[in-house]
Amino acid sequence: MIKKHIYFFGNGKADGHGKMKDLLGGKGAGLAEMSRLRAPVPSGFTITTEVCKIFYEKHRHLPKTISAEIDRNLDKLEATAGKRLGDLENPLLLSVRSGSKFSMPGMMDTILNLGLNDETVEGLARVTNNPRFAYDCYRRFIAMFGNVVLEMGKEVFESALQEKKREKGIQQDLEMDADFLSRLVDDFKQIVQKTKGEPFPQDPYDQLRLAIQAVFLSWNNPRAQFYRKQNDIPENIGTAVNVQMMVFGNRGSNSATGVGFTRNPATGEREFYGEYLANAQGEDVVAGIRTPKPIRELAQERPEIYRELRRITDRLEKHYKDVQDFEFTIEEGKLYMLQTRVGKRTARATVKIAVDMVKERLIAKNEAILRLSPQQMDQFLHPVIDPSAKRSVIAKGYPASPGAAVGKIIFDADRAVDLAEKGEKVLLVRRETNPDDIHGMNAAQGVLTARGGATSHAAVVARQMGKPCVVGCEALHVEEEKGIVQVSGKQFREGDVLTLDGGTGEVMEGRLPLISPQVVGDLKTIMAWVDQVRRLGIRTNADTPHDAALARDFGAEGIGLCRTEHMFFAEERLPIMQKMILAKDRSEREKHLTELLPMQREDFKGIFLAMEGCPVTIRLLDPPLHEFLPKRGPLMVEISEMKHRGAPASEIQEKERLLARVEELHEFNPMLGLRGCRLGILFPEISRMQAQAIFEAACELARKKKKVHPEIMIPLVGLPGELASQKQIIDEIAKEVQTRYKTKILYKVGTMIEVPRAALVADQIAEIAEFFSFGTNDLTQMTFAFSRDDTVAVIKHYQKNHLLEKDPFATLDISGVGQLIEMAVRKGRGKKRNLKIGICGEHGGDPATVEFCHRMGLDYVSCSPYRVPIARLAAAHAVLQRRRH
Amino acid sequence: MIKKHIYFFGNGKADGHGKMKDLLGGKGAGLAEMSRLRAPVPSGFTITTEVCKIFYEKHRHLPKTISAEIDRNLDKLEATAGKRLGDLENPLLLSVRSGSKFSMPGMMDTILNLGLNDETVEGLARVTNNPRFAYDCYRRFIAMFGNVVLEMGKEVFESALQEKKREKGIQQDLEMDADFLSRLVDDFKQIVQKTKGEPFPQDPYDQLRLAIQAVFLSWNNPRAQFYRKQNDIPENIGTAVNVQMMVFGNRGSNSATGVGFTRNPATGEREFYGEYLANAQGEDVVAGIRTPKPIRELAQERPEIYRELRRITDRLEKHYKDVQDFEFTIEEGKLYMLQTRVGKRTARATVKIAVDMVKERLIAKNEAILRLSPQQMDQFLHPVIDPSAKRSVIAKGYPASPGAAVGKIIFDADRAVDLAEKGEKVLLVRRETNPDDIHGMNAAQGVLTARGGATSHAAVVARQMGKPCVVGCEALHVEEEKGIVQVSGKQFREGDVLTLDGGTGEVMEGRLPLISPQVVGDLKTIMAWVDQVRRLGIRTNADTPHDAALARDFGAEGIGLCRTEHMFFAEERLPIMQKMILAKDRSEREKHLTELLPMQREDFKGIFLAMEGCPVTIRLLDPPLHEFLPKRGPLMVEISEMKHRGAPASEIQEKERLLARVEELHEFNPMLGLRGCRLGILFPEISRMQAQAIFEAACELARKKKKVHPEIMIPLVGLPGELASQKQIIDEIAKEVQTRYKTKILYKVGTMIEVPRAALVADQIAEIAEFFSFGTNDLTQMTFAFSRDDTVAVIKHYQKNHLLEKDPFATLDISGVGQLIEMAVRKGRGKKRNLKIGICGEHGGDPATVEFCHRMGLDYVSCSPYRVPIARLAAAHAVLQRRRH
Repeated sequence: MIKKHIYFFGNGKADGHGKMKDLLGGKGAGLAEMSRLRAPVPSGFTITTEVCKIFYEKHRHLPKTISAEIDRNLDKLEATAGKRLGDLENPLLLSVRSGSKFSMPGMMDTILNLGLNDETVEGLARVTNNPRFAYDCYRRFIAMFGNVVLEMGKEVFESALQEKKREKGIQQDLEMDADFLSRLVDDFKQIVQKTKGEPFPQDPYDQLRLAIQAVFLSWNNPRAQFYRKQNDIPENIGTAVNVQMMVFGNRGSNSATGVGFTRNPATGEREFYGEYLANAQGEDVVAGIRTPKPIRELAQERPEIYRELRRITDRLEKHYKDVQDFEFTIEEGKLYMLQTRVGKRTARATVKIAVDMVKERLIAKNEAILRLSPQQMDQFLHPVIDPSAKRSVIAKGYPASPGAAVGKIIFDADRAVDLAEKGEKVLLVRRETNPDDIHGMNAAQGVLTARGGATSHAAVVARQMGKPCVVGCEALHVEEEKGIVQVSGKQFREGDVLTLDGGTGEVMEGRLPLISPQVVGDLKTIMAWVDQVRRLGIRTNADTPHDAALARDFGAEGIGLCRTEHMFFAEERLPIMQKMILAKDRSEREKHLTELLPMQREDFKGIFLAMEGCPVTIRLLDPPLHEFLPKRGPLMVEISEMKHRGAPASEIQEKERLLARVEELHEFNPMLGLRGCRLGILFPEISRMQAQAIFEAACELARKKKKVHPEIMIPLVGLPGELASQKQIIDEIAKEVQTRYKTKILYKVGTMIEVPRAALVADQIAEIAEFFSFGTNDLTQMTFAFSRDDTVAVIKHYQKNHLLEKDPFATLDISGVGQLIEMAVRKGRGKKRNLKIGICGEHGGDPATVEFCHRMGLDYVSCSPYRVPIARLAAAHAVLQRRRH
Repeated sequence: MIKKHIYFFGNGKADGHGKMKDLLGGKGAGLAEMSRLRAPVPSGFTITTEVCKIFYEKHRHLPKTISAEIDRNLDKLEATAGKRLGDLENPLLLSVRSGSKFSMPGMMDTILNLGLNDETVEGLARVTNNPRFAYDCYRRFIAMFGNVVLEMGKEVFESALQEKKREKGIQQDLEMDADFLSRLVDDFKQIVQKTKGEPFPQDPYDQLRLAIQAVFLSWNNPRAQFYRKQNDIPENIGTAVNVQMMVFGNRGSNSATGVGFTRNPATGEREFYGEYLANAQGEDVVAGIRTPKPIRELAQERPEIYRELRRITDRLEKHYKDVQDFEFTIEEGKLYMLQTRVGKRTARATVKIAVDMVKERLIAKNEAILRLSPQQMDQFLHPVIDPSAKRSVIAKGYPASPGAAVGKIIFDADRAVDLAEKGEKVLLVRRETNPDDIHGMNAAQGVLTARGGATSHAAVVARQMGKPCVVGCEALHVEEEKGIVQVSGKQFREGDVLTLDGGTGEVMEGRLPLISPQVVGDLKTIMAWVDQVRRLGIRTNADTPHDAALARDFGAEGIGLCRTEHMFFAEERLPIMQKMILAKDRSEREKHLTELLPMQREDFKGIFLAMEGCPVTIRLLDPPLHEFLPKRGPLMVEISEMKHRGAPASEIQEKERLLARVEELHEFNPMLGLRGCRLGILFPEISRMQAQAIFEAACELARKKKKVHPEIMIPLVGLPGELASQKQIIDEIAKEVQTRYKTKILYKVGTMIEVPRAALVADQIAEIAEFFSFGTNDLTQMTFAFSRDDTVAVIKHYQKNHLLEKDPFATLDISGVGQLIEMAVRKGRGKKRNLKIGICGEHGGDPATVEFCHRMGLDYVSCSPYRVPIARLAAAHAVLQRRRH
């Protein structure tokens, strides 16, 4: 059997249908489907993507059998249209367009008005009784054909047009009459003759053959290749070619063209939405030269056509079960549908339309869930810049935490707190942030740093706080000491106002208006459906009762990571912490720890209360101790200056002692140094204090009939013995405290899996651990040997050069780090079948990572409060998408 | 069938034999074997380790069936000995000793002279005609039995003895006569009565029963438990009990006792070697109260006994096919063999004996190879402290690089070079070393640091250079600025002399005498056999022609790692390197690289020549760039001081610019930052320069008919694209240079596998790589999240607390890091069957790691020059040990 290479459509019938995108391309499949739905589509035929492949296989040549098949379909098209190509009386004009499986807007070529030549243009003038129209079509065709098929520059035609207009003193295109255009056609033809050395092809069949070949060739033009690379579109799928009868909305007052949506794409309201222009072409609507009318006016002007349009588009919406974005043309009173596709919409509209369509029984709840993307969900959770505002962008960094913020720039955390307390809105601007800046970040509207990446300190803390944040904005030259920041040749001082967009990474001069999208009732409805579908539990990373409560409102079902180190940076605690670190021996250390104990206990009580009834995973002290001490360089300078100004010897000595300890604790690579469980093993008194605070807090609440479920997590375990030794301490303290309070607490002791070795020996660790939680930030750092603070520029460069597709600190590296996770899950559950396993790295809120966690059979993901709804949605998507496959 | 629980030996027969160590313990099996060989062993029987298990299972009680079996064997022993236990005329005396499968010297208990009581002591006095001897035996027995069986302190008996001696004015034990000893026995019995509330047991059968139980109980005494834990001896194997007839070397001038070796254990010479004491007990020889005579004197004194001893020990050596270390006793003219075991010997003796025994056709070559341990091999390669010298140890650190060194301490690298040039021998003493110190290390006799571990900078470089080195010597308080080091309350200044032992980690005051063991001809013989056996190739890590030549002399078959960064620290190059780093743009960078090019080319020519005909693996630039720049803190202080002293503004500005660049390049965790192939990807001009230097050097030599085989290695690859992009640069340059020189070079481009991700995606990387080389230093760092510079104290603490058995930077962590290596080999060879794979981390010279590499099927290991012979030997051992299993 001979393979079919051409698919005809028109007159309420079609050889193909809407699911044949592989073969017909998106546009061809859509045209076929619309024809089958008896929408008035201009007839035509689609040359399949297979032909494109054959074209390249045969060294850019079409076999005769296919040419013959094109001829047969052209005959059929002429019969349907009642016109013939090249006919001198009533010539058929054609459009020739590309159309691949995946949309590649503007990347490939299109030719309109094909079929015109020196003779048919006269016929067209006669049959339309509109010579101006005919010559206008012809000059456009020559220019388009010259550019696309003959590979001439667009600008040669454009400049010839401009010169002629200047010569005749013409300002507006509308002033160009038939005579003018006819002479322009002559000029254009001469340009072709001169440039190509041969006349513009007059034979419409030649024109068609050349146009089809040009579309195939455009598949491999450099910009199409680049687009495919950028968008992960395979190289070998080829494009189809759609040859279709031309229709014209510019043949007089009885003609028009328009675009529309079956529902409001901004609000989601069920209203027919769109606009049209009488006596115009599609490009006029887009160009914005004339102001189009709202589509409801069509109901008055042309009620019968309006009714037909509504009937057709309703049918399309019901058929496609989604909002349609359509294009139409009215040619001398006859309606033609040129295109229909799923309409893009705002997040708000997405939710309303999805919920409405469920109510209308058009789609199922699961489909409604899939309609809402996690990226859109993000829009609901942060203020954004009014889209109508003009942006004067001065720099662009990494969009670290979504939402927009406006405020006076401040370079110092304390100063930010002072001003915020006075009611000022401020932005904290720094080279980079560190734990000392947390209070300043909290007081600020948003955070902007010159250094750092997706998981730099600023980014992580800002996301946690739900603060808009832009990091790694390398164009900024921040001089914190001088209180100035220089960027793009401008200089801003403390108090100058900037606006940040944490969703795009843009930094703008001045104060832009913000709007807060509301969480409308429909969102709540859809999230309830989401929770019925998902299997993964969703927890949050929260260090304070405030964050815990916030996350709970967002739907968190527990805390997956409560870091305890931030608690020690509070103003009244840091000095005690420092004394503890500087202590000469264990007994002195224990003395200072005893001072910290009641404070920690209160911290935990607050968090347990905010999460009452839910599990709370508390991680014991993790960072290197020198993070709590002053920095080395500045301390050296301070001592040098004290000496110069002749400060008392005793003061200098004290500073020198401090410096000596800082030197002693200094590490070349603190990430790989004395931190995590190593602290609790070398200084067991720290773990004992923390365990005591946890269990005393739990017991005090349990006595008041509050339900508390502590899960104590040991960081940075790489050896089974590390976990065992810390678990022993915790179990001892737990027993002692429970006996003392005569209360029973159900608790678990588990471990982070964040060191590659832990994944490799997960079977041994599972013998001791009661749960695993993947610390994917550190696991990514160690697996790649990427310090998240130091490799921002490297990762950017790698992404630009396609060495890395995605930032592995934003989306989990499934092919590398993912292997370790898979191994740990397999080995861990192999040893302990019901081992509870979660993830608490920054990746926990990333949809692709959530999907992976679902697939790996994890019990929960944990993420910052503001990402909880996104994680819930992504978890439901993971279930539904797996069902589809 | 009833299981046999007691094995008799004596009179040239034995129930058991030498291979039954599991059941009879080491001593019991040895006694049985000696009996079978008709050596005159005092008769006795061994109660098996099974009985020990039964004893514990039955709650520390022996079943009647076993007691009956003991009785039957005792009867047999009495018949053989011709004496009876408890006989009043001629009493049989027994020794009761423990003996487990593994030697646990001094850990468990022994009872001698069992069978004595108030009546038999008289019989013994009569039959020996020596009352003094009889009472001396009795008092020793009571004290030993009181201590071991009755669990009384040793000191009560000792102080009673001292008191009595004082009372009688006795100075020497020899002055104690029978009367004195008889009264001492009375005192001892009273002490027992008083302490235990019951008399000393008089029934010899009770004595025996209690003694056997006591030996079983001693299996579980705390010091035995601790010893087993320390030495990886299983808890559940139990001990056997050996009950044996007593013989006495102290029964008069016709009696004697002695020890000996069948060959000289110091030199390996084939000479009968040992010493003896007439009328003495074994412990007298050990105690050193009397000076023993050389054993050759026995040939004169008692030629018939000497001949018998020679005959017996020759037979034992032939039987055991190894040097025997034996103990004997002559009781009234009759020779008894008490023990024989494989003799410990020096490295030198090991080699000589092994080669001699091959010549004597006693052992095969393979056995000779296995006799030489890699640890002994190490002794051949470095000077050591004269063992007879008295060591006054002031501190102990990590033994980082073997050998001993003596010299004046110097705290500054430049100063060390200056003094060394003047002919002084110096030791470089620093808090830690860094690449700036290399010239100083090279000039010094040895290196001592207060910080760092097995693979710290100092340790790695020192091993590379073959310099003795002690690191992490934390007791040292080094004040480099002041030129003093304080330790254990003492203070040493520049110029004071210390001695280091890099094999033990000890640091000693003053100048100790050194000796250089020679590589004798026999070692060469054995190493030739080694090379016939091993499958693994052995390469070296060498950065200079000198190291390459040295390693080649030691048997290296190529370079596995030539680091290129050290080349840039040379005095005339560092300023150019710094200019390159500080360059504003690529073209300026390229200008400075062009200056470095000819220097690099000469480096490579030198190395290629030194390794002519062998592969040379060159690693492209690896360390973070800021390692080449001044340090941040001191620079800040310098600027601050310049301001204070009013330095010219332009100078300050220049320093500030330098500081700004240092700040810009500053990394929180440089190990995980901009280094390795990331440098070559961000600054491809660096890789281009290095590739050009390599290929120009290779081509210049190839033209002169020299054989060069460069293998270019890309460091820190984690993504296949990283390797691909660097390989592309290298291949391009290679092509260009070869064309220019009209010469063909056979080269390979491969990658380090040192980032965990590289192991995980080794299949993808193998598609590009032409070889893999495991960089186990970094791989260990990332897999454990251990910075080798920062976790010395952590690793020490872990080893002390049994969280880690071995330092993972010294011996490869097979259960963790080893999994990644296994995975990478499997995935890599799965994709490319003949992929060449090696290891070039510090572990390459560690015998256990070499064994693992052999097992994994690697092609070669690479290690520092001084470890090449060790690696060769270990590679042969790996083959032979696998054959054994």
